[in-house]
Amino acid sequence: MFTGLCAFPLTPFRDECIDFQAFEKLLSRLTDAKVDSICAMGSTGLYPYLDHAEFQSVAEKTVALADGIPVMVGIGALRTKDVLQKAYLAQQAGVKAVLLAPVSYHPLTEAEVYNLYAKVSAELSVPLCVYENPGVTQFTFSDELYAEVARLNNVAAIKIPGMPFANAQGAERLARLRSIVPANMAIGVSGDKFAVAGLQAGCDLWLSVVGGLFPQTAMRIVQAIKDHQAVLAIQWAEQLEPLWQLFVRNWGGMRVMATAADILGITESNCLPQPLQPLTSAERASLETLLTQLNLS
Amino acid sequence: MFTGLCAFPLTPFRDECIDFQAFEKLLSRLTDAKVDSICAMGSTGLYPYLDHAEFQSVAEKTVALADGIPVMVGIGALRTKDVLQKAYLAQQAGVKAVLLAPVSYHPLTEAEVYNLYAKVSAELSVPLCVYENPGVTQFTFSDELYAEVARLNNVAAIKIPGMPFANAQGAERLARLRSIVPANMAIGVSGDKFAVAGLQAGCDLWLSVVGGLFPQTAMRIVQAIKDHQAVLAIQWAEQLEPLWQLFVRNWGGMRVMATAADILGITESNCLPQPLQPLTSAERASLETLLTQLNLS
Repeated sequence: MFTGLCAFPLTPFRDECIDFQAFEKLLSRLTDAKVDSICAMGSTGLYPYLDHAEFQSVAEKTVALADGIPVMVGIGALRTKDVLQKAYLAQQAGVKAVLLAPVSYHPLTEAEVYNLYAKVSAELSVPLCVYENPGVTQFTFSDELYAEVARLNNVAAIKIPGMPFANAQGAERLARLRSIVPANMAIGVSGDKFAVAGLQAGCDLWLSVVGGLFPQTAMRIVQAIKDHQAVLAIQWAEQLEPLWQLFVRNWGGMRVMATAADILGITESNCLPQPLQPLTSAERASLETLLTQLNLS
Repeated sequence: MFTGLCAFPLTPFRDECIDFQAFEKLLSRLTDAKVDSICAMGSTGLYPYLDHAEFQSVAEKTVALADGIPVMVGIGALRTKDVLQKAYLAQQAGVKAVLLAPVSYHPLTEAEVYNLYAKVSAELSVPLCVYENPGVTQFTFSDELYAEVARLNNVAAIKIPGMPFANAQGAERLARLRSIVPANMAIGVSGDKFAVAGLQAGCDLWLSVVGGLFPQTAMRIVQAIKDHQAVLAIQWAEQLEPLWQLFVRNWGGMRVMATAADILGITESNCLPQPLQPLTSAERASLETLLTQLNLS
């Protein structure tokens, strides 16, 4: 489950309802590219915006259409009771893993986050991936908390926030994490910009936003690293730099990928639920040019 | 509606369900103290954690028990469709105003926030109070956005985040805000620590967390300012400084007030929905000492 490329597709909307036709098209790109795993309803897949019925439908649809590729789903919610309900629905749908971020409105304390993971992991019969994303949850894991959470049953992976692994600080951070979690714990790199350096530095998998829409491109990079073609992988990743700049200017990849899916003709021109909006027309034009130049697929 | 003290009570829970018995006790403290208005389901009242049925029950209960005191409710949600649904339910329950923060998971853009307020204000027949709280929404209003939102129908008040009004920067900020919004727009101070200086500097009302549980204490301060007894008001507020320090150490007043409600015997020992927890036992002990020393009521 936790190796290679884990692709994070959008959950596309049309008039405030999930656009399952578009979602099928997104999933077929992932199965065609034979990504290593699929994470539906990650941050890019808008998990906190979905109600339980929407969550259940997307989980079932993803498992049904994944063509045997293992499926993970994001089960975060503000209240523990809702996380538990989503964990139940996800397992009933046949997912192979769950992704859990410490979602908050009032930022959480370490004790609250630990208890959340303890309660949820106790109810699981599939592995759980801890999801650290301070940009959306306002929570940063201390090493002590990682060590405690990693000891819980069913906790099998950690999705760490993007950081520059190419420099000494990033490498040290990864080594430090390895030293405090069990040896078989998978550590995944997120923040697409940092993926190649992260994989090179020893991360087990790339949890990828760009791979959710352009899986061939992302798989080519992952394969190059597996084939010890690091120079090639770095070159390809460097070509994507203008895309990462768009991500940075637009609070992450979600709005960029939503706009790209429209440009590709897969979704509505605005496939996000209100109040979320796709890129401005100026940014959309830059993205359109970029997609042509980069020949993403 | 938008003058004097607006008290923000907790929404107490017991075993993951709303504890209406405790909520009645909280409301009776507010009606006894004759607060100027009540805001149920503000941040302290945990609005984003409630589902629509819980929201409707609390709105109806508050209006029924408010003894004629005008009631406002927080209607924020991640999706605009849910905000609109809450606006409908709130008005049906008979509230006199609604409070709306730009709630986010993916931080919002200015255009998204403007459209949210435009859509919601168009569906209202009661005034709306704009709620800026970057600590929980990750969104800061620009002056331009305030000016645009303030021009929308039914937008009647702004709840600005706590800032030190006693210094020149705070006073300038307030003067600047006054210059860009219509003359009849109420500007309310939040962040209890800054309330006296804010009211002194010309804010129209104090939107108060401490006033949601200790309304007599908060009303005494507001009355002193109305009576031009500024020195007295400042003295009283300064006595509360250790309480504000507890707020700062615990990510705001919510957990402190939840623990205080338990100490007063109003609620369960943990009246918060999971994963939220009250203060640690050490902090609880400090609070208990403090409540005795300060003689809050």
